[in-house]
Amino acid sequence: MIEFFNKTELCRSTSSKIIMLVVDGLGGLPNPSTGKSELETAVIPNLDLLAQKSDCGLTTPVLPGITPGSGPGHTALFGYDPSKYLVGRGVLEALGIGIDLSANDIAARCNFCTIDTKTGALIDRRANRIASDESRELVNILNEIEIPGFDISVYPGKDYRFVSVISGQGLESNLKDTDPVPPNQNPSPVIAIDENSKSTANALNIFLEKTKTALSNQNTANMILMRGFSKLPHWPQINEIFKFRSAAIAAYPMYRGLSKLIGMEILDGGEDFDQEMDALYKHYSSYDFFFLHYKPADAAGEDGDFASKVEALEKLDSYIPYILEINPDVLVIAGDHSTPSIYGNHSWHTVPFIVNSKYTRGGTKRFNEQECSSGSAGHIPASSLMSLAMAHAGKLAKYGP
Amino acid sequence: MIEFFNKTELCRSTSSKIIMLVVDGLGGLPNPSTGKSELETAVIPNLDLLAQKSDCGLTTPVLPGITPGSGPGHTALFGYDPSKYLVGRGVLEALGIGIDLSANDIAARCNFCTIDTKTGALIDRRANRIASDESRELVNILNEIEIPGFDISVYPGKDYRFVSVISGQGLESNLKDTDPVPPNQNPSPVIAIDENSKSTANALNIFLEKTKTALSNQNTANMILMRGFSKLPHWPQINEIFKFRSAAIAAYPMYRGLSKLIGMEILDGGEDFDQEMDALYKHYSSYDFFFLHYKPADAAGEDGDFASKVEALEKLDSYIPYILEINPDVLVIAGDHSTPSIYGNHSWHTVPFIVNSKYTRGGTKRFNEQECSSGSAGHIPASSLMSLAMAHAGKLAKYGP
Repeated sequence: MIEFFNKTELCRSTSSKIIMLVVDGLGGLPNPSTGKSELETAVIPNLDLLAQKSDCGLTTPVLPGITPGSGPGHTALFGYDPSKYLVGRGVLEALGIGIDLSANDIAARCNFCTIDTKTGALIDRRANRIASDESRELVNILNEIEIPGFDISVYPGKDYRFVSVISGQGLESNLKDTDPVPPNQNPSPVIAIDENSKSTANALNIFLEKTKTALSNQNTANMILMRGFSKLPHWPQINEIFKFRSAAIAAYPMYRGLSKLIGMEILDGGEDFDQEMDALYKHYSSYDFFFLHYKPADAAGEDGDFASKVEALEKLDSYIPYILEINPDVLVIAGDHSTPSIYGNHSWHTVPFIVNSKYTRGGTKRFNEQECSSGSAGHIPASSLMSLAMAHAGKLAKYGP
Repeated sequence: MIEFFNKTELCRSTSSKIIMLVVDGLGGLPNPSTGKSELETAVIPNLDLLAQKSDCGLTTPVLPGITPGSGPGHTALFGYDPSKYLVGRGVLEALGIGIDLSANDIAARCNFCTIDTKTGALIDRRANRIASDESRELVNILNEIEIPGFDISVYPGKDYRFVSVISGQGLESNLKDTDPVPPNQNPSPVIAIDENSKSTANALNIFLEKTKTALSNQNTANMILMRGFSKLPHWPQINEIFKFRSAAIAAYPMYRGLSKLIGMEILDGGEDFDQEMDALYKHYSSYDFFFLHYKPADAAGEDGDFASKVEALEKLDSYIPYILEINPDVLVIAGDHSTPSIYGNHSWHTVPFIVNSKYTRGGTKRFNEQECSSGSAGHIPASSLMSLAMAHAGKLAKYGP
């Protein structure tokens, strides 16, 4: 939709307000023992009532059958064609922890790992999940490393994770991960996929050698893995396209990173959804579009914990009255993808959504996959949801005479 | 679909007949006091019975969330991708009143207005809605104006509206409207958006200056506004693509204009739907495809008059037996867009449709938004409807071996 809006200039600035609540991993599958999905099992009276007064439907995150990562799942919800706009994992992580990347920087998502000191084989991909404190000290050690002609900086993340950023002239990011997919193999050096990325690979391999030496006296975290080498992409900025002032409220770094990439203002979303709600109330007068991120449903689905996902959805339901109390012109409730508990992972299944405004047709009895399947808003690409939100908010001019 | 049919040459000429009845502004929204839309409120036994024997569904006119003008709304129903095929307002108006445009002509939709003679500020955008008779006399005055190197002709329209056409060499239409959007500002001169349109802008500004002088002794209609500068686009012709003989029956000029642009034969549709029906009966043997336009539903919706729209739909229902009596092989009933009375304007909402032939699945109980949402033909782009009509009429060959 981004290209259509860029070309047609239909978007117009108004005082109306949109809240887009993204329930991570919202969609599910029936539990074989009951025949009911997580949403069908959960007691969610507020969502059900809202659905009855709204236009409901199902989104296809990318294309039928395609399971999105969190990046494309969200990119689509913000109106960007996820098959065109794909951001690297390294960049997403870097932005998420507040690193200001320059145009030529290459970011990678890294983690400490344990290798067999004799054979070099990977023993523990996560270095026994060492805690953030310990990890931070090791990051300080790595920050002492110098490589000729380039700058490399390392930033601590959560637990055993961290981010590295290499800066300099002529860097390219077409590089393979060092993470060996089969177990008990040696981590790979950085391998360039094209000619232009070779000097970057060489510099990173020098860094990896020096890292191995620097960590050689560690018992657990004695090596690192690097993944998702990527450069900052230059995407159309959301505020310019939609002519609104947007803000992201997300407790988790990656979602803040993605929001920053498309030019949203990042508000302090605290550590959980309670604090996200506080941020929404605090900043409500200053923006027209709010992206609000709810993580627990996805986390439970990924753990394969049906009951926990049901609980996460019921917990979400309890927040709905407080969101409605703020009285947005448009409230969209959607998911970046499905994470069915019985699948234990992101999946390709369509995702239920609600668009609430005063211009809706209703007709959906409950908020779940089955009911939304025959909802008044139909089955649509996730990247069309933003366009619906804009229309309901009165922020789109008529197309053509 | 046009490109697909052009490429595949699936269309074949047969003796079967298709009637496409376009109910302008067909779709609606629930009345908050009853929870029922205009179609759900209306007593439309003939449409309901027809729906039960047909394939029903909902069309998305352009893209989700996009509100079409009448142009793209109809273009899509005729099978043209409305995001690609966009006609200027000036051309549409000119064709509608029967002007034969040449390839180099620039047409504009104009209206008389009232300006403050001292400041030049726009006081009344519609010159107190002066009647057609008065407007016609003023048009005669403007037709006396000459500009060096070009011909300009002015044609009367309805009430305060008229059309101007400038002819000559090197004209281009990338020009801004002279209509000032904020109230109480001076009408703008014609401004060229690109270099190639500058000489056209100059010529039109000479015309505007002379117009101001020519109308200076008028009390009300003492100036004009010009909008929608455009050239005749060259689009694939509908009869060539679909291999049929098509005819348009529309009482309103703009719909005739659009039909002419794509190569339909324009029949005399008279002044209202009764006369359109007469034309349908009179010419039924001579064509294979009839576009029949029903305006009153849109007009009532735009007036925000729920009861009138219900009445317009009930009136439409009374014509259905007479259309069925003629026994077309395929009857399509669709809308170019929704015009919900509670919204009082064209909207982005999906639009119910009926495709009736002897090869339908049925299953829809009544003809309205809710029932069509789970209809056997699904939610489809409006530009796919023509393809369905052709298939049901046996006018499409099998695709591929």
